[in-house]
Amino acid sequence: MAAQRPEVLISEVAPRDGLQSIQSIMPTAHKCQWIDALVRAGLREIEVGSFVSEKLLPQMADTGAVVTHSRQHSGLCVLALAPNLKGAQSALAAGVHKITVPISASEAHSLANVRKTIAEMLNELDQIIQTVQQHNATSGKPPVVVEVGISTAFGCTLAGRVSDTAVLTLANKCAAIGAQEVGLSDTTGMANPAQIKRLFTQLHHDLGDRAGAAHLHNTRGLGLANALAAYEAGVRTFDSSQGGIGGCPYAPGASGNIVTEDLIFMFEAMGVSTGVRFEQLLKARALLEEFLPDEPLYGMTPAAGLPKGFKWPATPTT
Amino acid sequence: MAAQRPEVLISEVAPRDGLQSIQSIMPTAHKCQWIDALVRAGLREIEVGSFVSEKLLPQMADTGAVVTHSRQHSGLCVLALAPNLKGAQSALAAGVHKITVPISASEAHSLANVRKTIAEMLNELDQIIQTVQQHNATSGKPPVVVEVGISTAFGCTLAGRVSDTAVLTLANKCAAIGAQEVGLSDTTGMANPAQIKRLFTQLHHDLGDRAGAAHLHNTRGLGLANALAAYEAGVRTFDSSQGGIGGCPYAPGASGNIVTEDLIFMFEAMGVSTGVRFEQLLKARALLEEFLPDEPLYGMTPAAGLPKGFKWPATPTT
Repeated sequence: MAAQRPEVLISEVAPRDGLQSIQSIMPTAHKCQWIDALVRAGLREIEVGSFVSEKLLPQMADTGAVVTHSRQHSGLCVLALAPNLKGAQSALAAGVHKITVPISASEAHSLANVRKTIAEMLNELDQIIQTVQQHNATSGKPPVVVEVGISTAFGCTLAGRVSDTAVLTLANKCAAIGAQEVGLSDTTGMANPAQIKRLFTQLHHDLGDRAGAAHLHNTRGLGLANALAAYEAGVRTFDSSQGGIGGCPYAPGASGNIVTEDLIFMFEAMGVSTGVRFEQLLKARALLEEFLPDEPLYGMTPAAGLPKGFKWPATPTT
Repeated sequence: MAAQRPEVLISEVAPRDGLQSIQSIMPTAHKCQWIDALVRAGLREIEVGSFVSEKLLPQMADTGAVVTHSRQHSGLCVLALAPNLKGAQSALAAGVHKITVPISASEAHSLANVRKTIAEMLNELDQIIQTVQQHNATSGKPPVVVEVGISTAFGCTLAGRVSDTAVLTLANKCAAIGAQEVGLSDTTGMANPAQIKRLFTQLHHDLGDRAGAAHLHNTRGLGLANALAAYEAGVRTFDSSQGGIGGCPYAPGASGNIVTEDLIFMFEAMGVSTGVRFEQLLKARALLEEFLPDEPLYGMTPAAGLPKGFKWPATPTT
């Protein structure tokens, strides 16, 4: 049987979102070894780091070196976060394939997080996109893609509710400025499935192919229900984190980011191909456990194991 | 503003499914106090115990007394499990409003669980229903309802996959015998949202108003995604357990049964009314914590709290 073409793209964010949230600094060699294992498991897009101040996030100081290593995997989309022009320039210099720029839908969160207003961030995005376009025009390589992740798109811990209009207006502005993909992030774990479906449906209506990833958290246990709702609304790219590291866990057993292992099990069990192999994913998880012995890892499928009789990749039961 | 009529019925199973799964035996007075708190929180159906051998499940030995106490709450549907005719007779004598009979869709599970074949369980169901009908004809009270929960409906830890045909054939037989409601139970935490949607859609097609509750577990983290899928397939009654107690937890942070607190948050956040008040539910949870100090309680919404700006009961955001 010919391999099924994956229907969803899992964008693994743990090397960035996970490692930047914990105290321990993972050595570069371990990061690279772990990323290699994630690639062997079939992950095709990995957010390998963040181009930010080393003083603020020393965990991300080696992102350039990690990008260089990760680029050796043919077929892997090497993604990095850049919150400003300077970061984007470093990302281009390092050779990333894709830059993700976070822009908050909440003015309060934007000021608290990056000390810029939303308008200032849109100006920053404009400069980033111009710089990337100039780079692309002369690089002789496949063009670097700029995606925007709209943070606090489903609510803000500072401002409370964020209106659909604020989110969609911002998303449309980002696309008009030239972002190739605009995704929505439940930064605060406040989203619910009805809201997810409503916003992503409208995002697809407004932006068509430029409607981007769902970045979901599991703060209140709704992470996978929200992923299901996003899938039903047409989303085909999902950020998730191996072992659920990163984000803001509140509760024992609660993860911030949704857990790659459980997300992939859900899709494969539904007969939706992810291209990821479970056994290999567990090998990458074992490395992560070895490299971060003091950090809790989340995920229920790794603990419970696959159901008896479950074939991977799965086909729908009848 | 007039109170919204609840759109979904949450059937709280913790006093039965939870307490029978743990070592500690909760004293009758504590059970009653906890059930009172659950009723104050707005729960309208509670599975208060199980009429089974005291030797096998000493935790359930006082079910008769708990039923007697619970019946004092007007408007509460007092539900108890009975796996056989003898249990159903005791349930009738105690004065329950509803009897739930578990029948497995997997022959292997049926033999292991109740030492009866599926055919023998259908015969037992037939006797139970005749007995209940005779009781109803002469009781002068509102008729006692018999529901069947088809266990291992989505897979079996012994037999592996369970076919849709096996489940639906059995459900139809139970309805033909006279069960007023037939629900489907993911006893083993093996269900996925596509399977849930497919089976409940067919169940509604076959049984109409007799299609019953979704009883879901969170073994592999998919519990709320499965609840969402069931809701979308027309299910309006959901079993869940306060603090996620009961079922078969495998993983730290994993619950067996889906957690009432998180389930109710999901529905209310979607604008689907449950009739349950969150603050009061937390008071019931506090009692449970006090009464079972050595048992882990699950649930992420209790730990994270409601989102900033969240109004309960919720209305959809716009």
